[in-house]
Amino acid sequence: MNRSQRLVAIMKLLSERPGELLPLSFFTERFGAAKSTISEDLALVKEALEADGSGRLRTHAGAAGGVQYWPLPSREEEQETLLELCRLLSDPGRILPGGFVYMTDLITHPIWSARIGAIMAARFIDAEPDVVLTVETKGIPLALMVARALGLPMVVARREGRVTEGPSVTLHYISGSRRIHTMTVGLRALWRGARVLVVDDFMKAGATARAMVDVAGEMGASVAGVGVFVSTAEPARKQVQRYVSLLTLEQVDEVARTVRVVPADRLTKE
Amino acid sequence: MNRSQRLVAIMKLLSERPGELLPLSFFTERFGAAKSTISEDLALVKEALEADGSGRLRTHAGAAGGVQYWPLPSREEEQETLLELCRLLSDPGRILPGGFVYMTDLITHPIWSARIGAIMAARFIDAEPDVVLTVETKGIPLALMVARALGLPMVVARREGRVTEGPSVTLHYISGSRRIHTMTVGLRALWRGARVLVVDDFMKAGATARAMVDVAGEMGASVAGVGVFVSTAEPARKQVQRYVSLLTLEQVDEVARTVRVVPADRLTKE
Repeated sequence: MNRSQRLVAIMKLLSERPGELLPLSFFTERFGAAKSTISEDLALVKEALEADGSGRLRTHAGAAGGVQYWPLPSREEEQETLLELCRLLSDPGRILPGGFVYMTDLITHPIWSARIGAIMAARFIDAEPDVVLTVETKGIPLALMVARALGLPMVVARREGRVTEGPSVTLHYISGSRRIHTMTVGLRALWRGARVLVVDDFMKAGATARAMVDVAGEMGASVAGVGVFVSTAEPARKQVQRYVSLLTLEQVDEVARTVRVVPADRLTKE
Repeated sequence: MNRSQRLVAIMKLLSERPGELLPLSFFTERFGAAKSTISEDLALVKEALEADGSGRLRTHAGAAGGVQYWPLPSREEEQETLLELCRLLSDPGRILPGGFVYMTDLITHPIWSARIGAIMAARFIDAEPDVVLTVETKGIPLALMVARALGLPMVVARREGRVTEGPSVTLHYISGSRRIHTMTVGLRALWRGARVLVVDDFMKAGATARAMVDVAGEMGASVAGVGVFVSTAEPARKQVQRYVSLLTLEQVDEVARTVRVVPADRLTKE
């Protein structure tokens, strides 16, 4: 392979293995090239990413050295994606009975979930989580894409225990509509001392996110952050104190057939 | 940007948008370069992918021309991944009561689910599906990654109808253990005439896959294929006639603590 071919192949590998620490030897063996050659290649990749304004490449020096890549969006890509999502979600055709907004098509489409996941990953990468926790079912595509962008495992809390998950920790919680729910996480899935990033697609009262924070605590894990794709403007006071929401569902009027979704404040709510 | 930088940025864009038809104008605008320059860049990318032996780039000529990229693995990558998964799954520590094998850690890890998804995508890309259908919960990560590699939307069948999915089609089916189950798919999610690729993580009797095939039929869609990550050797006769399985769970002995998972025959079963 010549340099052009190696640059393409390296970028392909990095994109397929986000978050992984890839030693220089991984590249030298794969391409049959000297360490100095690969180092120059990686410097060119880094330059290109900086020129493009998106993606983060970290170089680790020394014997255990190598590179890590995260597919984080540029500020412009982020803004463009969020504004487009607001436009799509503000379509009155999405209004469902009870003032719900249909968003399953967006969160289950891998192109959208990957973009949203990368935006969420950028908000939390510096909190250094080491696992992403979500709850079945609609949270899974986003959580998987957040985990993918960060190179972390994902854990799915279930509504009830399953033989296929092995022994588990179960807790009960009260939803915003005052019903009792169950949440269960496999003991094999989450470990003591883990730093958990809680991710969900939607937050109203915040009871589900609260339950995820609590179940993580019961399992000896700590919470690195809570991130949701869309949260409702009301109630303003949620059951989790600190969370990041990408979009805010400001208002739905089932009769007038209007819905308004806007980018959330970038700041963490207190 | 110079050529090296463009090659890196182009490969990054292609990796982030698999399956999408990206017109040449997309690149010329983004990089402020002439069409002829971008065409040369893309030819170099194609050469590099061919030298690397993985990934597929298709060039469409003409006014509506452009390129499409799919992150398909090379034959060697595929074999390496499947053998490593067999090794991991054949660990006796994974045996659960009832002869189940714990595999949630692998299918929910984005690095593994992306690799498995790309292998599955390669098996079905020529069947030209236009949507991936799975059922909650454990099928979702794999199905999302298959959909991602093919650039297709994913649809999740639910166990019961939800207000957030809108009106739906529901059917009942009988599992291998003779229990009645319900499966429901939102009318907004699947369209008449769609070519559906059914994906699931595990198949024993094949009742769940059969139900997905049936629900797709009820909605006026046709089936482009059925793909599962692991199927059991017994029963040999499943409720779907044609399917592709990547791995076969040959045997689990709860008492002797042995489990054997092997790569499945590459051929479609009849």
